[in-house]
Amino acid sequence: MKLLDIYARMKKDIAYVERELESSVYSEHAMLKETSLHLLKAGGKRIRPVFVLLAGQFGKYDLQRLKHIAVPLELIHMASLVHDDVIDDANTRRGQLTVKSKWDNRVAMYTGDYIFAKALTVATQLSDPRIHRILSKALVELSIGEMEQIRYFFRTDQTLRNYLLRIKRKTALLIAISCQLGAVASEASDDVCDSMYAFGYNAGMAFQIRDDILDLTGTEKELGKPPGSDIRQGNITLPVLCALRDPAIRSELLAEIERIRLVDGQTDVTPFLRIIRSGTYIGEADRLSSNYIDRAIAALSGLPDIRAKRDLVQIAHFIGNRSY
Amino acid sequence: MKLLDIYARMKKDIAYVERELESSVYSEHAMLKETSLHLLKAGGKRIRPVFVLLAGQFGKYDLQRLKHIAVPLELIHMASLVHDDVIDDANTRRGQLTVKSKWDNRVAMYTGDYIFAKALTVATQLSDPRIHRILSKALVELSIGEMEQIRYFFRTDQTLRNYLLRIKRKTALLIAISCQLGAVASEASDDVCDSMYAFGYNAGMAFQIRDDILDLTGTEKELGKPPGSDIRQGNITLPVLCALRDPAIRSELLAEIERIRLVDGQTDVTPFLRIIRSGTYIGEADRLSSNYIDRAIAALSGLPDIRAKRDLVQIAHFIGNRSY
Repeated sequence: MKLLDIYARMKKDIAYVERELESSVYSEHAMLKETSLHLLKAGGKRIRPVFVLLAGQFGKYDLQRLKHIAVPLELIHMASLVHDDVIDDANTRRGQLTVKSKWDNRVAMYTGDYIFAKALTVATQLSDPRIHRILSKALVELSIGEMEQIRYFFRTDQTLRNYLLRIKRKTALLIAISCQLGAVASEASDDVCDSMYAFGYNAGMAFQIRDDILDLTGTEKELGKPPGSDIRQGNITLPVLCALRDPAIRSELLAEIERIRLVDGQTDVTPFLRIIRSGTYIGEADRLSSNYIDRAIAALSGLPDIRAKRDLVQIAHFIGNRSY
Repeated sequence: MKLLDIYARMKKDIAYVERELESSVYSEHAMLKETSLHLLKAGGKRIRPVFVLLAGQFGKYDLQRLKHIAVPLELIHMASLVHDDVIDDANTRRGQLTVKSKWDNRVAMYTGDYIFAKALTVATQLSDPRIHRILSKALVELSIGEMEQIRYFFRTDQTLRNYLLRIKRKTALLIAISCQLGAVASEASDDVCDSMYAFGYNAGMAFQIRDDILDLTGTEKELGKPPGSDIRQGNITLPVLCALRDPAIRSELLAEIERIRLVDGQTDVTPFLRIIRSGTYIGEADRLSSNYIDRAIAALSGLPDIRAKRDLVQIAHFIGNRSY
């Protein structure tokens, strides 16, 4: 498995970032330390740090600088997940209890605030003002994305554009700037930084589309949560939008979504999943995801043919095909 | 009234900051624009911007630079209020409906996240890395203070030190860095920046102690909310801690606090207010507040005798005596 090879080769630096992540959220405040470490220990693919480290190889690779990008980006991602859990009424994530269900909503909100703030203190160790401008703008977009998500819950009249803009803000942008800032912090040329942004943006779009597909096609064991979690929260994703365009099932699907909405998602969603899994809707969503992967790889074309470039191509292919 | 004179003299620059505040939260996102403007329009004393502008007069006064400090500090203060309202079950603040009661808790949380992020984008217009380090560290302390507040709700066994550390994080620190960063952004000497921090810290401590006293002694008309709001939320403030030290009323007071706690603050707190207003407890808290004012003024002693210094002294005296 090529992806594992890449992680294996970067193992030492990833482990270093992992230790820095842990020490970054260290607090004398017992509960914040506990909630933050609980989140960190829940794991995750650490895809943002990996992108930062790979992007850094297109300039002067310096782990001591790159950690000040990799750690904040993973922390910001984590903080946004905690705030999402407050909203989502999610009780588990990655098979673990969420902060909000293990403690309460207030603790989850303030833990998110704390981790956001900690992320910033780490980033401010770098003086380049571009870094802070890029980061703070992304935070604005991220918060708009969070708000948009609520606004479009159960909205079956939303457009493909609404969906794409939402996943851009929610996911793709943070991955895009992981790549971009890894290059910026390594003093790569502007062209390289722009290419890395384009790569990350497209890979991030594909990543989220795959995520949304897996929520509809995966099993509870694969996902660490029951399939159909998105629709239970009211989150209308790409395959659902594709299905809504099909006149043959549109009214049945609308009725099913309305049934789920009326009970606030507290119901068996098997009939909904059956409709979405029928037909070609998953396949259509998959094709759009593949398009983004193609664009991600194309964005790398002007870059020097170093191993990190081949690694990024591998990761892009993995994202396009991943089934977990 | 001396304070109004100061505001009148600074009127043009304060009005400019006010316009910048409005445009800073501008968003194409209709709801975020609406919630943010709702918060801004609720008003407030804008004490942080005023401190930034006064501190800026100890260096090279440049409104175009100072606005990048004044706006973020007021925004951060606002964002922390919205997140506080989520926690506090507060339905009004300054006599206005809170975001959380006008919309809902999720909207309030994300509005807070959005305003925090917007604050950062404004600050990143300044390149001096010291500014970002000071700001991000203060955000960490602020979030710890928020969490501490929850932890100590209804805790009658807390010490004076617990209380002082909490109001430092919750209020004094942001006022301290308003003064400090106003000086830093104006390229004042390190000594001046340190003095401004010390002034702001002490003035901020006095400010919060006065606020806590007013919640116990004011009328609903003066406060824009019913007196005793703090204890209804579980917030044990300085006069209450003073009263708890008095063996003559301690057990009666403990019973009264327990009664309020058991019904989650949903009760008439007149008996509680009567106990606190009896005896010398308010006076004791007032004396501590006056000590902080003395220290704030002493912190200015090494600074040149310009009008801004006299203004800061006036504001400190106002804070020490304010009854609204």
